[in-house]
Amino acid sequence: MKKHYLLTPGPTPIPPEVAQKESLPILHHRTSEFSKIFMNVSESLKEIFQTKNDILITASSGTGTMESAVINLLSPGDEILVASCGNFGERWIKIAEAYGIKPTVIQVEWGKAIKPETIEEALKANPKIKAVYTTFTETSTGVVNDIEKIGSIVASTPAVLVLDAISGLGGQKLLTDDWKVDVVVAGSQKGLMLAPGLAFVSVSPKAWKLVESSKLPKFYFDYKKYKKSLEGKTTPFTPAVTLIVALEESINMIKAKGFENVLKDASLLASAARAGMKALGLELFAEIPCEVVTSAKVPEGVDGGKIVKKLREEYGVSIAGGQGKLKGKIIRFAHMGYIGKADLLVGFACLEMVLSQLGYKVEKGKGIAACEEVLLKGEAPVPANAGV
Amino acid sequence: MKKHYLLTPGPTPIPPEVAQKESLPILHHRTSEFSKIFMNVSESLKEIFQTKNDILITASSGTGTMESAVINLLSPGDEILVASCGNFGERWIKIAEAYGIKPTVIQVEWGKAIKPETIEEALKANPKIKAVYTTFTETSTGVVNDIEKIGSIVASTPAVLVLDAISGLGGQKLLTDDWKVDVVVAGSQKGLMLAPGLAFVSVSPKAWKLVESSKLPKFYFDYKKYKKSLEGKTTPFTPAVTLIVALEESINMIKAKGFENVLKDASLLASAARAGMKALGLELFAEIPCEVVTSAKVPEGVDGGKIVKKLREEYGVSIAGGQGKLKGKIIRFAHMGYIGKADLLVGFACLEMVLSQLGYKVEKGKGIAACEEVLLKGEAPVPANAGV
Repeated sequence: MKKHYLLTPGPTPIPPEVAQKESLPILHHRTSEFSKIFMNVSESLKEIFQTKNDILITASSGTGTMESAVINLLSPGDEILVASCGNFGERWIKIAEAYGIKPTVIQVEWGKAIKPETIEEALKANPKIKAVYTTFTETSTGVVNDIEKIGSIVASTPAVLVLDAISGLGGQKLLTDDWKVDVVVAGSQKGLMLAPGLAFVSVSPKAWKLVESSKLPKFYFDYKKYKKSLEGKTTPFTPAVTLIVALEESINMIKAKGFENVLKDASLLASAARAGMKALGLELFAEIPCEVVTSAKVPEGVDGGKIVKKLREEYGVSIAGGQGKLKGKIIRFAHMGYIGKADLLVGFACLEMVLSQLGYKVEKGKGIAACEEVLLKGEAPVPANAGV
Repeated sequence: MKKHYLLTPGPTPIPPEVAQKESLPILHHRTSEFSKIFMNVSESLKEIFQTKNDILITASSGTGTMESAVINLLSPGDEILVASCGNFGERWIKIAEAYGIKPTVIQVEWGKAIKPETIEEALKANPKIKAVYTTFTETSTGVVNDIEKIGSIVASTPAVLVLDAISGLGGQKLLTDDWKVDVVVAGSQKGLMLAPGLAFVSVSPKAWKLVESSKLPKFYFDYKKYKKSLEGKTTPFTPAVTLIVALEESINMIKAKGFENVLKDASLLASAARAGMKALGLELFAEIPCEVVTSAKVPEGVDGGKIVKKLREEYGVSIAGGQGKLKGKIIRFAHMGYIGKADLLVGFACLEMVLSQLGYKVEKGKGIAACEEVLLKGEAPVPANAGV
């Protein structure tokens, strides 16, 4: 009987129209009916990615696609740069190391953003670097990196730029081609308002040259197999049929609303969330906050884990806590995809109650009031770098 | 408006009760609610696998899990044996080769079964073989291999037995522990009556020793990560939540019917299908036919591709044709999971019409009559080795 309110950065809530499609009688994947849906989805994703590159679709979590972007581009002994600002940035390092690739690492303090000039310096210092792996919106800290700047830096070198946009795609402006991002990996359970189980990757012609010469071993995630199958309007292995059918619906919903409007909404909600946190006296955690998830420091003397637990258990509200070294230290509210204004207000109202229950002095209604102000104004009065 | 009848060996039809679960509001995967479902599914799968070993669940197609059973057990330079009798047996070879492993290969003619003694001889000839990779029900030809015998042979050596049971699990008797199968890989879209997107693997203690020492690179499919997470009642990466929730329902349905009865039904349908094919004058293709899919040779002068196409386009009936070198040469009817007696009759009735349309002399109703005879009798009068 418990009613759930999902304010987590993946999975995010699924619109009923999309969820219903998941339960339609299953189509066989080697039919013209499915092929039409698959190609429609593949083409439409290009608009979401803002790219002319093909989008390859795998049945996997986002991490599987991150791995695919390592094993399809690199060969043993290759030098790469990982610019990391959080838990998911570190995943690039772990994946590379699992394949015997020792990356040069730019590691900024969690909560800070990557300074594009440090990437420029690293590439100058080592012209043998073939690929730069980094993160768009770092889900674990709530930071967004300046990919436009990083893209222009990497594009002027022989290296390719590989971006984990798993939590950001569909929730925050990302111009794959204009910003010269060679490889973008993304997942289904974020801004695309779908269940987890599908992942996507766009590959530029510059990156495809690395694919051609890559010697790291692979089979299930082999881009060449996906590209060849895509030319035949199909997939190399049995696809996650019901998720792809549902994805067509969620893309249709995004198109009907207008992708620009979807991004504007996420931006407005992010702004409201920042205002709400500040009004409650919670310090924003991200140096440059992204628009898909807002992070704030847990007040002195309060256990962050308890906030998350009480919200879920007593009110059915799921938010995220801190990961890894941030465990118990921050809380995170997502506001992308099918999370609306009212959902955010529910989250803040219950947060006020839980903080109060945990002994933190909170003026009830103050966080909500600040959110309302921003939402009513319909624009973003709290600057995006308010956390500095 | 077209009504679909799915008689393909994956995806198979999904019961509405299961499909509905896919469309429930999504749960967050790091909650006690989801954890409970995940652990229930993980434990229940042991009954389907007939094993005491842990079952690891990945978000992927079956091929991903096949790859996992190569990269988690082996190290560079390892010697393995692949015993192949069809398209999916050959996949083991391709995956191994992608990782620089050159397998010793036993390759029998497609349509024939693997002779267990050839495996015995190969293991005697090369005691360095660490693992034997083979297939349970070879979907591409409709053959079942004698895994009980093969299991006892391999168990008496230091090698482990790795079985692709993707199309067979849940549709034909497979006693993982009793038959001493060390690693069994399976998928969601066959006998488990679910959409594709989940895959499963059971790993014996003997095989786990290879996991401990394996040096092939891996990350997303790393068994150690899944095992460690399973101990914490969770998954290492975001799982395909909606599919796991739906899987709980399909397992409940299997339990309610009784797993033994599910297998008996598939066996009866297989018997009816064989009788139907013979009555229509179609020669069975498999030397030892399995119970999840029945294959028959396309009559002289008839284009097998056209049979499949016309069945689908004119009657909405999806069956499978031949793969690879069998393209156009055989047709395949699946009868596992949520495919019932009436579905099989629909398939045969429409097959009679299509064969007639394609100029093959067919006495209308004769195939159906033979199916009915078997179904009414409720036991299997056509011996399983009828195709010899």
